[in-house]
Amino acid sequence: MHPHEDSVLRPFYEPRGVAVVGSLKDVRGEAYTSIRNMLHFGFSGNIYPINPGYSEVMGIRAYPTVEDVEGPVDLAMVIVPPPAVPEVIEHCGRKGLRAVIVGTEGFAERGEAGARSQQQLVDVARDHGVRLLGPNTIGLVNTSNGLVTAPYWITYDTIRKGNVAYGSQSGFIGAQGLPLEDRAYPISKMCDFGNKCDLNEADLLEYLVDDPETKVISLHIEAVKEGRRFMDALRRVTARKPVLVFKTGRTEQGATAAASHTGSLAGSAQVCNAALRQAGAITVNTWQEMLDIPKVFAMQPLPSGNRVGVVTATGGVGVAAIDGAVQAGLVIARLSGPTVDRLKSLNPSLGRNPVDLGPTMVVAADPFAATEEAVRAVVDDPNVDCCLLVLPSGIDRWATATVEMFGRLRQRTTKPVSVYIYGTSVSVRDDVARQLDALGVPTYLELETAVRALGVAVEYARSKSRLAG
Amino acid sequence: MHPHEDSVLRPFYEPRGVAVVGSLKDVRGEAYTSIRNMLHFGFSGNIYPINPGYSEVMGIRAYPTVEDVEGPVDLAMVIVPPPAVPEVIEHCGRKGLRAVIVGTEGFAERGEAGARSQQQLVDVARDHGVRLLGPNTIGLVNTSNGLVTAPYWITYDTIRKGNVAYGSQSGFIGAQGLPLEDRAYPISKMCDFGNKCDLNEADLLEYLVDDPETKVISLHIEAVKEGRRFMDALRRVTARKPVLVFKTGRTEQGATAAASHTGSLAGSAQVCNAALRQAGAITVNTWQEMLDIPKVFAMQPLPSGNRVGVVTATGGVGVAAIDGAVQAGLVIARLSGPTVDRLKSLNPSLGRNPVDLGPTMVVAADPFAATEEAVRAVVDDPNVDCCLLVLPSGIDRWATATVEMFGRLRQRTTKPVSVYIYGTSVSVRDDVARQLDALGVPTYLELETAVRALGVAVEYARSKSRLAG
Repeated sequence: MHPHEDSVLRPFYEPRGVAVVGSLKDVRGEAYTSIRNMLHFGFSGNIYPINPGYSEVMGIRAYPTVEDVEGPVDLAMVIVPPPAVPEVIEHCGRKGLRAVIVGTEGFAERGEAGARSQQQLVDVARDHGVRLLGPNTIGLVNTSNGLVTAPYWITYDTIRKGNVAYGSQSGFIGAQGLPLEDRAYPISKMCDFGNKCDLNEADLLEYLVDDPETKVISLHIEAVKEGRRFMDALRRVTARKPVLVFKTGRTEQGATAAASHTGSLAGSAQVCNAALRQAGAITVNTWQEMLDIPKVFAMQPLPSGNRVGVVTATGGVGVAAIDGAVQAGLVIARLSGPTVDRLKSLNPSLGRNPVDLGPTMVVAADPFAATEEAVRAVVDDPNVDCCLLVLPSGIDRWATATVEMFGRLRQRTTKPVSVYIYGTSVSVRDDVARQLDALGVPTYLELETAVRALGVAVEYARSKSRLAG
Repeated sequence: MHPHEDSVLRPFYEPRGVAVVGSLKDVRGEAYTSIRNMLHFGFSGNIYPINPGYSEVMGIRAYPTVEDVEGPVDLAMVIVPPPAVPEVIEHCGRKGLRAVIVGTEGFAERGEAGARSQQQLVDVARDHGVRLLGPNTIGLVNTSNGLVTAPYWITYDTIRKGNVAYGSQSGFIGAQGLPLEDRAYPISKMCDFGNKCDLNEADLLEYLVDDPETKVISLHIEAVKEGRRFMDALRRVTARKPVLVFKTGRTEQGATAAASHTGSLAGSAQVCNAALRQAGAITVNTWQEMLDIPKVFAMQPLPSGNRVGVVTATGGVGVAAIDGAVQAGLVIARLSGPTVDRLKSLNPSLGRNPVDLGPTMVVAADPFAATEEAVRAVVDDPNVDCCLLVLPSGIDRWATATVEMFGRLRQRTTKPVSVYIYGTSVSVRDDVARQLDALGVPTYLELETAVRALGVAVEYARSKSRLAG
């Protein structure tokens, strides 16, 4: 059986054809731009523009209604004024569609009248056997087939295909809000839940648990709609794949703002971080963590213990890294005798963890070779379960040397590493980070995220073996 | 009287002439590069290379010893092997210098023998009336006179002159470790304390309290040497200028690492964050906060209350911003009637705080004008004491429009604002942030830092009025 055979999200993510219903004028936020994005990202299925005023747009035939399309249509992206949405859902139902994304805004997020209109969408959809994503959403991304429904023009050519799935209650997380090109997050699927009038996080989890493209899931949630079902799904998924959750609306005032944003009812007090962790989820506290930490799971093996080795080119950052590691639940590894000997042969001052290479790099005949040997020594140590590396970029040949070093090292280790890159040029750091990420070495531009990534990997490995054991 | 007349740090920061003692080969970490940096940054005083094997370097006359220099010398930067340092200090003392930076490594940070050698430096210096910075330091930066003592080549042309002083126990904070050009931190003075065998944070605070170039001070500390004196100095300075402190070595393991890094004895348990706050300091938790938050003080007025107005182009980030603001001790402002009316005339859905412009930007005839009017309305509101603005870059003309808007707005307000810039391109975001910073609008690339900056401004304003009252 196809892994997604019975999932309600299958026609959303894997449609043979997509109808895009709405304005075909070249205006931001309209159907035109959804179509343009799908053409741009090479969507592998058929695209059907739907608008009675057009016979063609961007060289593609347009149709008056969804029912007029001859070929198979599995998904509709709908961006028409609120009062027109129910009729479009009816058309979709009669055409046999089971999947409709309502991009249109102006429903439950606008108070009681909007909430009533939203309920009407749900009723019409149920009557016609249609499932809804949204309203008030930019929809989906699937890097396997080039599906990008966002009605905002995406200015870059590729979204890097990878193993991280992102789900969010904000368009911010979508392809037009994130530096997906610069930072090159390795993405399998994205989903903006919008107001969650029907489908929600639980459905996404149930789809992704079997998705072979997805190794790790990262969710932003303002309020959970179906608490028990979500927790059940979370428990099932986290036994197999890590799930990170960034919960906003954590404060009373934040929850009020969430009600205006996506019409979510609070309920946030019930589903707190402790409950999420109980279900095996990893809770994170910032957008940056939600976006950046999944890389460690997508690229690296799970650690078999909690002992961290730190190799740093600058002692001051090493001290801060040790603080961060302890606070993230890691234990500072006690280096074994042979490792101490290897390090002392580089420089008699070495041998402790963190390995502060600063003075060695100044006196070494070849500081790059010394750094590589120190990293190898620590990675090889049987007392070390994971490694944090703090390396410079942008001084002398460090940028190139660092990338070359990891080209040689990456075959070698079955232990997770994370890298913090510092230096005098943001653009050089960003460039080195992208190259190391491409080699499968998760690289961060903030020390705290690099440390936290290892802490989170240890936390998940432990929770997974607890759930399995 | 000159404000620094009686400060021991005056000859360090304002020397008429600097002797640079050590190797004049073009090698990283040596005297040669210190000299090259001072030439590069246009040091306004005289530079005297000191090395018996040279008569000239980079077109400047060299001298065998400091005593051979004819002109006035107020400061020496010394990078010679550890056993040779005491004699150089003697020469300096006999020449009448009161200020010596010992860049050389290999003292207390290398254990007991190193600690004994370090004590010898202190004894020799005291005998000759010389004060020491270091050892194990890259020294100082003073943007007023182009003094940059670091013996590592700094790859960019200017360090932006401004009102923030940074002091640290790590060379990481120095001009060769930070993206000072890309991020354009507005700097007055920098100081790497190194092992603090003599001068320490208390001396820096006593110098900076009267420094007209310095509006805000940001310190990284591994361990405080003279606790009571430091706390007294802190209390005096924070009554006049904000002081941020990033304390590392907070965990037992971190404190052990600090001992290896700068030979600091722990003592960290005694001087905890609570004590620092009691003395009026602002404690921060990451390098990024230590570096980035001072901008809000350097560029903006202090808030007269704790009520924040949030204007955001994306609702999801607005919710997270409200959470962050509440956690940072801010109160979410209740917008006044006239403000609500102004906002509703832009779009009937507006009127609440956070002001979520997302839907308005889609339907507005001119989304830039609508954004500017919304920002003006919130900034003008008498119920609002400070503003957080969440704005896009890199979509359509947003980058340019945002910079132009702040060009018009900046004259207008006596309330502090901070800006979080998001978008699809890291380099565009960085560029917009630099332009806004140059306009005096503190701009951040992480939401959490932008929110925290306002929280910290409110915390300091409150603590200052408490100390004054």
